[in-house]
Amino acid sequence: MDNRRVYIFDSTLRDGAQARGISFSLSDKLNMLKLLDSLGIDYIEAGNPASNPKEKAFFEKAKDVELRYAKLTAFGSTRRKNSKIEEDPGIQALLSADTETVAIFGKSWDLHVTHVLQTTLEENLSMVKDTLSFFKEKGKEVIFDAEHFFDGYKANPDYAMRVLEAAEQGGADCLVLCDTNGGTLTHETEEIVKAVIKNTKTMVGIHAHNDSETAVSNSIAAVLHGARHVQGTLIGFGERCGNARLTSIIPNLQLKMGYRCIPEDKMILLSSVAREAAEISNAALDEKLPYIGQDAFAHKGGMHIDGVRKVKESFEHIKPEWVGNKRNFLISEVAGRSALVLKLQHRFPELVEDKEALQKITDKLKDLEQEGYSFEGAESSFELMVLKELGRHKPSFTLEHFKVIDEHSGGEKEQFASYAVVKVKVDGTNRMAAAEGNGPVNALDKALREALVEFYPELKKIVLQDYKVRVLDTKMGTEAVVRVVIETKDEEHMWTTLGVSTDVIEASLIALIDSIEYKLWEVKSKKER
Amino acid sequence: MDNRRVYIFDSTLRDGAQARGISFSLSDKLNMLKLLDSLGIDYIEAGNPASNPKEKAFFEKAKDVELRYAKLTAFGSTRRKNSKIEEDPGIQALLSADTETVAIFGKSWDLHVTHVLQTTLEENLSMVKDTLSFFKEKGKEVIFDAEHFFDGYKANPDYAMRVLEAAEQGGADCLVLCDTNGGTLTHETEEIVKAVIKNTKTMVGIHAHNDSETAVSNSIAAVLHGARHVQGTLIGFGERCGNARLTSIIPNLQLKMGYRCIPEDKMILLSSVAREAAEISNAALDEKLPYIGQDAFAHKGGMHIDGVRKVKESFEHIKPEWVGNKRNFLISEVAGRSALVLKLQHRFPELVEDKEALQKITDKLKDLEQEGYSFEGAESSFELMVLKELGRHKPSFTLEHFKVIDEHSGGEKEQFASYAVVKVKVDGTNRMAAAEGNGPVNALDKALREALVEFYPELKKIVLQDYKVRVLDTKMGTEAVVRVVIETKDEEHMWTTLGVSTDVIEASLIALIDSIEYKLWEVKSKKER
Repeated sequence: MDNRRVYIFDSTLRDGAQARGISFSLSDKLNMLKLLDSLGIDYIEAGNPASNPKEKAFFEKAKDVELRYAKLTAFGSTRRKNSKIEEDPGIQALLSADTETVAIFGKSWDLHVTHVLQTTLEENLSMVKDTLSFFKEKGKEVIFDAEHFFDGYKANPDYAMRVLEAAEQGGADCLVLCDTNGGTLTHETEEIVKAVIKNTKTMVGIHAHNDSETAVSNSIAAVLHGARHVQGTLIGFGERCGNARLTSIIPNLQLKMGYRCIPEDKMILLSSVAREAAEISNAALDEKLPYIGQDAFAHKGGMHIDGVRKVKESFEHIKPEWVGNKRNFLISEVAGRSALVLKLQHRFPELVEDKEALQKITDKLKDLEQEGYSFEGAESSFELMVLKELGRHKPSFTLEHFKVIDEHSGGEKEQFASYAVVKVKVDGTNRMAAAEGNGPVNALDKALREALVEFYPELKKIVLQDYKVRVLDTKMGTEAVVRVVIETKDEEHMWTTLGVSTDVIEASLIALIDSIEYKLWEVKSKKER
Repeated sequence: MDNRRVYIFDSTLRDGAQARGISFSLSDKLNMLKLLDSLGIDYIEAGNPASNPKEKAFFEKAKDVELRYAKLTAFGSTRRKNSKIEEDPGIQALLSADTETVAIFGKSWDLHVTHVLQTTLEENLSMVKDTLSFFKEKGKEVIFDAEHFFDGYKANPDYAMRVLEAAEQGGADCLVLCDTNGGTLTHETEEIVKAVIKNTKTMVGIHAHNDSETAVSNSIAAVLHGARHVQGTLIGFGERCGNARLTSIIPNLQLKMGYRCIPEDKMILLSSVAREAAEISNAALDEKLPYIGQDAFAHKGGMHIDGVRKVKESFEHIKPEWVGNKRNFLISEVAGRSALVLKLQHRFPELVEDKEALQKITDKLKDLEQEGYSFEGAESSFELMVLKELGRHKPSFTLEHFKVIDEHSGGEKEQFASYAVVKVKVDGTNRMAAAEGNGPVNALDKALREALVEFYPELKKIVLQDYKVRVLDTKMGTEAVVRVVIETKDEEHMWTTLGVSTDVIEASLIALIDSIEYKLWEVKSKKER
């Protein structure tokens, strides 16, 4: 056995679905299964076939999915107390999922056995041993999840160890120590894993939760002390504060510590697979996440930017491209000229040596920042600004007129109304449109697109994804300047634009127009290429 | 010296401001300073007075803030290479901030000295020693931040230790080991901290970044091995993936490991202070955050809910109320009660024993939270809500009708126009008013006051001080729900109110009306007393 090999077990589809706001449809589950396999994950735990018909249907469908790397795993409990295993419906459902591997959870904390399960300590040991041998006899690979192992070990180490012994007697292929409540700290994990490794012969695994913000380091400590199976969820979804995040654990183990978790050539997929997983889950990816977030290699402070230019590793712990991410220099008041040059390099390499153009853009940038513009996080507006400043941008339309009305009568909410009328001109042709919305900006957005879509059918496919409002230097109350940032998506890309004004509607409008102009410019540039 | 005492150093206003999207105004900074002090934080690092005039102005203003627990700390660099300290403008600016404590950062990685700073290893040692003795001679407490210490130690342990020696010779009160790139894992932190503790006599501190998702466990490992000063940012803001999160570190150390970080009676403020810090930063609080997030003690799985009902600690690592948070399982009858009582105690002491009233308020609160209301940082709207719910509030006016128009023609900004018309009724008398503004909310605010001031001349004296907009659940673009928080002032008081709606104008209006009603209620109650 290769002693540097660590097996990765993803539970996004089972434990991850316990997170608030996460709910997978059947097709979401199938897509996630294929996605995780494409990254080279070893085990994909996809649900408990006993819990509901949807889960059962999933395992039926999943048989048709060809997995290249992963073993599909069904999850279930030990048999019921004081009953025959052959008559246990949960066990039968688990069997009918027909997977090569099953994960069985059982109690290892005496308090849980006596007070939650409400049975004897001995009966619980039999339940563990019986269930595992049953599945081993059926020829399955059996992973045993020792629920609440760390709390159990702290309360009654003898009993917790006897549960693992029962699992070994039942033929478990792996003993997974679960920190179900997420309360265990890293030094405690170390001590307990060491003790388990010393007293067992089976492969040991770790399943950590993030309630103490130590799930990643607990998982790593377990591996350092001998565990070779790590459970988590790809981007950390899970009940309460979430499960151990595999997108942090995998690169920590593989890039920094020399363990082998996924095939070497898959590591560069990490960032894009994480983003797609968030997409399938219909959740926004936290851009501050280590390794994979857009901010993970973003530099704002002038000193840091200067440092990175001189020596790359001076403010970066790994090369961003190793995990398919990229470096990102944020344009901000503290950054200055060197940041601008770095920023332009990527999209407008020809400008880097053009002193006059640089000066022009710098001046414009200063003026706009004075007004409250700040292009960090609004890359597309930045690019448009550069194009405009260099005279390379021809607007696709002009907004001739707009009017937004927000009105209510009486004291009731239901009588609120927001509507917008716009008039645009495209190549000399005028077009008017009106729309109602659940707020003035929503109405304006709808009317604007309604007016333009006839000229530019590609606008049909764009979707407003995110809308943020920030009030700048708020000293003057409602007279203050607001900055609006809009995130727009189509089937392939996501782009961000911004607008600034004392009028929240105007600011939103500027950002909306930029968003549309950016899309149309992209389409045009593609055609020209 | 009490060996269980760990000093907490917050850098939200300095390192935290390096996060993408975070930008503090002068008044934000003053509010954050007071807030952090109220939690009993030991040191508050608030910026580099040499970096720009705004920072300088802040330290001037901060002199008037009375701090009960914290020492305000200014941050700066060692002197420039090959120059006289007395002539160094950065050093002069730092001195002029006039704080009792200064934090000085210096290089401890040889690569950075030779390639980024571009000077000799010896000159860097002199820079550290000179700068520290200079500030010690001026009577300051001096904290030395050894930048890139862990990378430096790995590359050249001798040189890294010589930098600490130079700092000790300069008289440093604390040697802070910084993991500037955030790449260090917990077992490496342990080893290096052990070596430093063995070879130094001064208090050692830790400053971790979260690029490997190990900032919290690294900080704890450092304390376990002898560090007694922990730097971080309250809710983890910071460049790239953020700084070590104090809201996780403090309860880990204090509730689980017996260290003393903040006064014992402040721990229950942790959740609300964190929420207010997010509010001041105009950032959404991540509800999955350990200890303080709304999801931290939220139970979704039926088994978990059942377990928690049978034995509380069965799925919870600590009691949520220890950190002022609450358990959350959709049907929470008692969960929020104690927090509510604490909240009411201050303003409505008579309600604390009134079970029926408490139930009514709890129910209403739950409904409003469902809509997106969150009363943290909007105390006055909370009080008004309680009064209304108890039938004790008689509105001072009703808004019969309003209309807001936002319009422009042509392409020029100057032709934007926003105006509002309102009709109010006070004691049976109608009054209309109209006003123009630099945005629709501003116009509405003006018209509303214009209409009311004849009935309530005391409204002349109130000033809108702050106006914040947050977009909730941003998935739906411009259809999203927005929360508006308004700060209003008169000669004596400051109060905050909020409104929630999909329509930014309606949300603003609700907050404006609450603000006016609150003022009028205050005036009335005074007269009655």
